[in-house]
Amino acid sequence: MMIEDPEFNDGIRAKIKEERVNVEWAVKEVADHYISLFSNIEDEYLKERALDLKDVSKRLLRILSGVEGTDLRSIKEESIIVAEDLIPSDTAQMNKEKAIGIVTELGGKTSHTSIMARTLEIPAIAGVKDITQIAKNGDFMIIDGGEGLILLNPSEEEIKKYEKKKKEYEAFKMKTREMKGKESISKDGIKVEIAANIGTPKDVDKIIENDGEGVGLYRTEFLYMDSDKLPTEEEQFESYKIVAERLEGKPVIIRTLDVGGDKDIPYLNLPEEMNPFLGYRAIRLCLDRVDIFETQLRALLRASAFGNIKIMFPMISSIKEIRDAKKILEEVKEELRKENIPFNEDIEVGIMVEIPSVAVHSDIFAKEVDFFSIGTNDLIQYTLAVDRGNQDISYLYNQYHPAVLKLIKMTIENGHKAGIWVGMCGEAAGDEKLIPLLLAMGLDEFSMNPSSILKARYIINNISKKEIEPMLDEILSLPTAEDVEKFIDENIIS
Amino acid sequence: MMIEDPEFNDGIRAKIKEERVNVEWAVKEVADHYISLFSNIEDEYLKERALDLKDVSKRLLRILSGVEGTDLRSIKEESIIVAEDLIPSDTAQMNKEKAIGIVTELGGKTSHTSIMARTLEIPAIAGVKDITQIAKNGDFMIIDGGEGLILLNPSEEEIKKYEKKKKEYEAFKMKTREMKGKESISKDGIKVEIAANIGTPKDVDKIIENDGEGVGLYRTEFLYMDSDKLPTEEEQFESYKIVAERLEGKPVIIRTLDVGGDKDIPYLNLPEEMNPFLGYRAIRLCLDRVDIFETQLRALLRASAFGNIKIMFPMISSIKEIRDAKKILEEVKEELRKENIPFNEDIEVGIMVEIPSVAVHSDIFAKEVDFFSIGTNDLIQYTLAVDRGNQDISYLYNQYHPAVLKLIKMTIENGHKAGIWVGMCGEAAGDEKLIPLLLAMGLDEFSMNPSSILKARYIINNISKKEIEPMLDEILSLPTAEDVEKFIDENIIS
Repeated sequence: MMIEDPEFNDGIRAKIKEERVNVEWAVKEVADHYISLFSNIEDEYLKERALDLKDVSKRLLRILSGVEGTDLRSIKEESIIVAEDLIPSDTAQMNKEKAIGIVTELGGKTSHTSIMARTLEIPAIAGVKDITQIAKNGDFMIIDGGEGLILLNPSEEEIKKYEKKKKEYEAFKMKTREMKGKESISKDGIKVEIAANIGTPKDVDKIIENDGEGVGLYRTEFLYMDSDKLPTEEEQFESYKIVAERLEGKPVIIRTLDVGGDKDIPYLNLPEEMNPFLGYRAIRLCLDRVDIFETQLRALLRASAFGNIKIMFPMISSIKEIRDAKKILEEVKEELRKENIPFNEDIEVGIMVEIPSVAVHSDIFAKEVDFFSIGTNDLIQYTLAVDRGNQDISYLYNQYHPAVLKLIKMTIENGHKAGIWVGMCGEAAGDEKLIPLLLAMGLDEFSMNPSSILKARYIINNISKKEIEPMLDEILSLPTAEDVEKFIDENIIS
Repeated sequence: MMIEDPEFNDGIRAKIKEERVNVEWAVKEVADHYISLFSNIEDEYLKERALDLKDVSKRLLRILSGVEGTDLRSIKEESIIVAEDLIPSDTAQMNKEKAIGIVTELGGKTSHTSIMARTLEIPAIAGVKDITQIAKNGDFMIIDGGEGLILLNPSEEEIKKYEKKKKEYEAFKMKTREMKGKESISKDGIKVEIAANIGTPKDVDKIIENDGEGVGLYRTEFLYMDSDKLPTEEEQFESYKIVAERLEGKPVIIRTLDVGGDKDIPYLNLPEEMNPFLGYRAIRLCLDRVDIFETQLRALLRASAFGNIKIMFPMISSIKEIRDAKKILEEVKEELRKENIPFNEDIEVGIMVEIPSVAVHSDIFAKEVDFFSIGTNDLIQYTLAVDRGNQDISYLYNQYHPAVLKLIKMTIENGHKAGIWVGMCGEAAGDEKLIPLLLAMGLDEFSMNPSSILKARYIINNISKKEIEPMLDEILSLPTAEDVEKFIDENIIS
């Protein structure tokens, strides 16, 4: 589509005619012009289009200069692709039947290639220095994406071992697919709910496809970030209502606006901060910008007439914030009553447990809300004082740290003592090593990426709470995260 | 001294001669030149000299232009100074016998005027909008620095109330002075240690003046920040040795390098970080830059032969870090043994408890070290996910948050169960409302600004642990920080 764009093409033609340059130069000049235009746009979505343009122009230049090299469309045998890097159009055109693995020198877990490989369920390893020098065409290679391992020209023994591993994995995948339509219930009869984290109404398709039992976390930021102004009440209402309706009575937990920090919204003119993760964001912003908060609460309440919506406040650190937020909610309810607009009078209100103070004081916090949802991503970050985006120290960020597990257990127990249910919507909820521990701790709801739901259900259906429960004290007394992971590997995951 | 500087004076003279400008202009031009020079220096200390120069030049210009205004040297009656702002030379020349209070429109708790007023023990309130418009010469005014209150032309009743309050305060101050040479022991016989936080060897004078019982926190950053290169082993050794010697066997807890984060050292070329408080700093840097760490440990060990030095590691979040740091310490010890250099073989090694994970897992951490020192400033920051330097949200930073108090209690109890002592070197240790709670929790050592030591001793000597202990459970079950503070005000502080 991009190379059919008339502005792009006319620009190239004009350059050739007027400046008498060759076509490669013209393509480069015109593409660079648009890339720089897009790069300077504040909107995150449009900004990323610069990358697409870069990709297309690179590809055009490779074709024009006759160095197109290997065409990934024409792979004939089952092959592992070894490359310095793959651009999006490489992976888009790749013969997916034959590409059975990817290894690249550049990139990491979150680079384009890795994300694409995960979607296609192809094993991939990124960031392997000098691999294009070491591996040669025709070499035999085993890659283990889970462990990040490459075996070049492996021995017979290694091949056997990995063939067995592969079969086991495929059998496991098959079994997870069979989980569709089944209950999420442990061997000893403990029923839990496995729900989905979603970002837009479109994601509901994935929930249905993966048989999710509800929405544990509906992030509402997309409404604010894909725009150049605040979303209207009506726009929000529509986005909440459609999800509530499509979930047909299953719970839909909608988190109120969680921006600020690293998620900037240019038109809000948020202050520059030295430590945005410890800054003015989420509920802190909403209690200050009550206009924004009230509009969202009105939309949420109105949508609650069309399904099983629950409201969740993010970044709560003190009980005063809950009380202030609930007071505003009551005022909005009162307004709606006066206007005779229907809403669910008994709508449940909960909070994210993602700041250590809430977990530590969860016995008292539990009395103020209808549910807890543990947000492990931030909880780990604050409990360990580690910005996980910071490469120099991200090795310290670890969901198996026994202090983190203690806080999770404390939160679940305190919630139950106060008679409320406790869920989790951080990445840990979908971690196959942690699911058994969380079940044993009594977690009621596991909310995760839709694609992990069936796997999680399979795990739940194959473990027994009462077998794991007696190990918890020992696990939580282990000194380090590494000890915890080792214990799980040796005693729980089989 | 500055206006006697020949370079400054010759510069002004040259400007007048060569450019034929008047003296005021010449002063301004030359001063601005040097101010901009100083402002661009990376070294924090020299950079601040720009402010001094600004002060001197402002004063000179005021004199030259004949608008000197009120001369604070010549105050004849006891007066409260009300001003838009006071520059350092104003307060330096102020008649301290007659200036009994200061109110300014600009500035805050940490501005020059406030710090100066605290040193002189003059009540002061900064940041009072429009007060120079409201108050007139000759008005009667009461200011209450503790509460941040101003009473303009108060009633007879108010005057009586505050005369009583003033007398009580003076009696209290007298009593704290009488604490010199006494023990720090509660009414029911619990002995604690009240130590000092210091930043340089010069601060030892203040410890002696205030009868401190040791050094609870010796920050070593000054050695690294007041320089343009890493301090040598010898420089460090001298700085540690002199403090150890002057403390004559009293404990001196030296914290290993705690830079990174907000404390930058230009010559280390530390990475730019999105969230420096959750970043590469303190022990994280030391375990990476082992060269820097080893040099400091060598200097510390060598100095340990000359007094009662203990080593403390900052920003510990996992047990692995303690083990790694202790391993390096052992290697340095082995080197010294080989070189026949004396050091204390049994030197105690402790950690700061300032990251929530350590407090939460303190039962296990306690088995790895000889002591804990709770660093409340950071502990509060991480537990509440609040950068206290961020004005938009600093209202959330509160040392009375019950979650923070629970973590402190947990740490003390777990330390004692493992047989180690527990101190505190954050600002909370000197907070008169918290001292009774900390005593009741069993805190062994309180380390604070030297000027707070005698007041803390007075408080300790006038409370009884067994009277406060039974209230702890109730206090820690209160919902909010405000509730906790109110409870202390009503039931403990009298």
